[in-house]
Parts: sequence; structure tokens; C-alpha cells
Amino acid sequence: MAYTYEYPHLAVTTDVAVFTLQKGELHVLLIRRGNDPFRGAWALPGGFVRPEEGLEDCARRELEEETGVSGFYLEQLYTFGAVQRDPRERVLTVAYFALIPSDRVVLKASADADAVAWFPANRLPELAFDHRDILKAARERLAAKLDYSTIAFQFMPAVFTLSELQTVYETIKGEKLDKRNFRKSILALKRLETTGKYKREGAHRPAMLYRIKARKGVEIIK
Amino acid sequence: MAYTYEYPHLAVTTDVAVFTLQKGELHVLLIRRGNDPFRGAWALPGGFVRPEEGLEDCARRELEEETGVSGFYLEQLYTFGAVQRDPRERVLTVAYFALIPSDRVVLKASADADAVAWFPANRLPELAFDHRDILKAARERLAAKLDYSTIAFQFMPAVFTLSELQTVYETIKGEKLDKRNFRKSILALKRLETTGKYKREGAHRPAMLYRIKARKGVEIIK
Repeated sequence: MAYTYEYPHLAVTTDVAVFTLQKGELHVLLIRRGNDPFRGAWALPGGFVRPEEGLEDCARRELEEETGVSGFYLEQLYTFGAVQRDPRERVLTVAYFALIPSDRVVLKASADADAVAWFPANRLPELAFDHRDILKAARERLAAKLDYSTIAFQFMPAVFTLSELQTVYETIKGEKLDKRNFRKSILALKRLETTGKYKREGAHRPAMLYRIKARKGVEIIK
Repeated sequence: MAYTYEYPHLAVTTDVAVFTLQKGELHVLLIRRGNDPFRGAWALPGGFVRPEEGLEDCARRELEEETGVSGFYLEQLYTFGAVQRDPRERVLTVAYFALIPSDRVVLKASADADAVAWFPANRLPELAFDHRDILKAARERLAAKLDYSTIAFQFMPAVFTLSELQTVYETIKGEKLDKRNFRKSILALKRLETTGKYKREGAHRPAMLYRIKARKGVEIIK
């Protein structure tokens, strides 16, 4: 089947940089490509936008088809449109990023992806296309957003201690934070509530377990 | 001439939300459309991406062709891809925003735009397509960035007083700021330098004129 237009059109894909935290390290979800170009190389999950499909719908569909991951916070990152970024022809990609609590994902491969796996963000394999640039931009956005939004909450399980939340911040920022200042500024957001339950962490006295107050999406901190 | 592809492609445009400050008010650059659809309606400057043209190159070319504006800070904002956003067919638009010092622009209309003008951002005419949504997103991004980047410096002329810079912040944020705190936090960025010259503002003693230290682009404030 052929598609004909009166003026030039572009092939458009979406790609998603999916992050999680595992064993105190930031991890990225990659698929191993089952098709050319870059067959056998690792890449971000993604694929072509259908004419009657919204961009975010496409990102969610491709992510679910290729990895089994669904239902999570997704944010548009940036549109990459360098003329030579795909060896086939001009392909524009609208990149998204997603944050996923690591305790809620079961991976599956698919027809387009012959494998799917988490990789430590600091030790990535060779990637197809310009996906290394996309991941770099996604990590920068993520680190920048830590300071002015509640985005890190997306990484957390249903209940957690403030130490666990601080570890998430420290892992993404790559630096140690002062415990007292961190607690003070996080609680000042008034977005966490106590569960009334406690968790024993090592030899310390039990730590309060918190949960996020019910609201949707990510808020900008004023 | 016809363009034929093996699988569906999308029409892709860029649109630019250009802001300036005039008479203490945020203004937006609009063109009046010379062609269908929405002929005669006001719209953001923009147009179709050519197959061999980068996205930002397209945004700059269309902006210059339609308005005569060139050479300014441009940042990708968001890609709008709702299926029905253009009455002709599915058209994706990669939106950019630009910040322009008001003392350096001479507007000109063109073949595609039969008029070009600045409008106060709070008193816009009816706009073509989803351009009202694009402008809303651009204003939100601009206001959010004030607090964590040097983006507002883009609005400033070559030399300016701290009061003038504070007025820019107040205009975009829509709120009054404390003079002493503002000066302290702005000078703490170490991005301004004194010119050694002064400007008389009203009945007050002459105010120091500052300029921005030479660096390119917008920095994220750590």
C-alpha cells in the first residue's frame, strides 16, 4: 500500500525513556531491536505514529506492546528532528519520559523487540539511532525537575520512609543531601502524609512510613 | 507534484510564540493569515518543515520570512499533535518560543502573512488552530523558568538598571516582588556586571546600569 500527499510529509515516531530505581541505582528500560535498521542493537521502546492516533497514545501503545509496561506517568520531553538521525529517511521522533516504581513492572518482549531489560543508566550498551542523546536529555530534565516539582514521588512505592525518599533524590542528583534540611523541605511541601505505621531500618529506631496524598500527575512547586 | 511513501507520514509544521515587553506589558507577535485555512485570522508565525531542514532551522526561517524577526534566543516548547487540530488533515506542530528585547525589532509582513503585529498577551484576538493553547503553554513555561534560569535576561536591552530587571520579573509573574530580596538573589547569580554608568530614575538618586556578562544562551540556575 502507498500513501500519497501533495506536499512533503515526514515519518514520525515516539520513543520513551523509562526510568526506575533498582538497588540504589537509576535504571533505564531498553529493548533489543528485532528489525532493521540497527537489528540486534539496544534502543528505547518506540515506533511510528498512526494517522489517527494522538502522540501520547502512540507512546503508551508502543511501550506496552514492546515491554508490557503500562499505566504510568508519562511526560513529553523533546522532539528530535535532525535530518540524518535515521538511516532510512527523515524520521522525527517525539520523545517522552516515564518514571516507574520498580516494584510494579513485569517485562515481556514482543514481535518488534526480541528482548527487553533494565540497564543501569551509568553503564549503557551501544544504542541505536540518537537514543543516547535522548537519554541524556531525559536525565537532565529529570535532575532539573527534582528541585521544583514532585516528580520524584513517581518513583516511590505505596508507602516509604523519608530516608528512602532521600536516597531517591541523592541517586538522581548524584550527591549526598543533608538529612535534616531534606526532611524539612520535603515535609514543607505538604504533599506527604503519615500512615501511622513504622519500618525498622537497620539498628536505628523504627522510621515513620509515609504515603503521597492523593492527587494526579506532577505538580510544579511554587 | 506528489509525494509517495510506503507507510503513513504526517504533515509537520513549526510555530513560534515570540514574546517581548512593551510599556510594562508582556506582548506576543502574531501574523494575520493570508491563506486558508483561517484566512484573515491571527496566528503564530510558522509553516511546514521541509524534508532537508532541521526543526529549529524551519522555525527561524518561517519567523524571519513572515515577520522579519531573526537572530534571537529560541527554545523548543512542546509538540502539539492532537488528531483534529488542523481542519485540512493531521498536522503535527513543533512549537518554539522566543524572547526578544523590544528595542531591536522591525516588523514586516510577507506573502503568507498579510499583517504582523504585537498584541498584549492578556488581550489577544481570536487565534487560528490551537494557537491559544500553544501560547498558554509558552506563558506557563516562561513564568516557571524565571525562578530557575537566566531566561529573563533575554528581554533586556544592552544596559539596564536592577529596577528595570525587577519590573520584567514582576510583569511576567504578575506579582510585586520585594526590592531588597530581588536585588540580593539576582546579584548572587554573579551573571551581571556593573557598567560604571548611571541612569536617573524619577526623583531618586541615579541607579547603577548593569549589563549581562558575556555567555551564550540560557543557563539553569543550580
